[in-house]
Amino acid sequence: MSDNLSGVLESLKAIKGVHGAALIEKFGLIKGSALPGWVDPEAVAAMVTLILKASQRATKELEQGKFNNAIIESENGKILFTEIKGNVLCIITTVDAKLGIINLKLDAASKTIAAQI
Amino acid sequence: MSDNLSGVLESLKAIKGVHGAALIEKFGLIKGSALPGWVDPEAVAAMVTLILKASQRATKELEQGKFNNAIIESENGKILFTEIKGNVLCIITTVDAKLGIINLKLDAASKTIAAQI
Repeated sequence: MSDNLSGVLESLKAIKGVHGAALIEKFGLIKGSALPGWVDPEAVAAMVTLILKASQRATKELEQGKFNNAIIESENGKILFTEIKGNVLCIITTVDAKLGIINLKLDAASKTIAAQI
Repeated sequence: MSDNLSGVLESLKAIKGVHGAALIEKFGLIKGSALPGWVDPEAVAAMVTLILKASQRATKELEQGKFNNAIIESENGKILFTEIKGNVLCIITTVDAKLGIINLKLDAASKTIAAQI
């Protein structure tokens, strides 16, 4: 695995069924992205902000504690969000992407990213 | 299984590891809830609104299509969101709740609720 952030993001994008990946700082700053041309990184950043807001509500009012991860499943695909040291790694997949394989590679990618930031 | 909405929600709440459940209309109206005293149904409704906003972004800008479901995993628990005919069924669980069992009962509950609304 590549040892720099864009290398890690590109390696996630290379997984079958993955459209792309981006690392977003918790206030919406885009730290890195490997996204297809039709995906606006700002739209991904906006989604991360909304998910973190929802999670903060959960933390405050439902005693759920710190945000770990989230998945949104829609008709045409899934979006995965994983917390890494105050940032959120976001992965956009097709609807039939295998979550088992993605989660394995995601764990490795998270560790590599966590070691760098 | 009970054939009325609050019966269905109560039966979800009775599953081991489930704190409670609520059915929220997509604009935030609470249609029914079986929640523990420390959970404010309005907070659940606010989360549903945020999740649906994030999903709408995904639909518009990432071509993800109609929202199906979402999970937020935090330090102390999980929150599951499932679309049912323009409403969202929201289930709040402990961190060690078994998703397999919950998903099975959730499928049955979704069908019962879909038949009534």
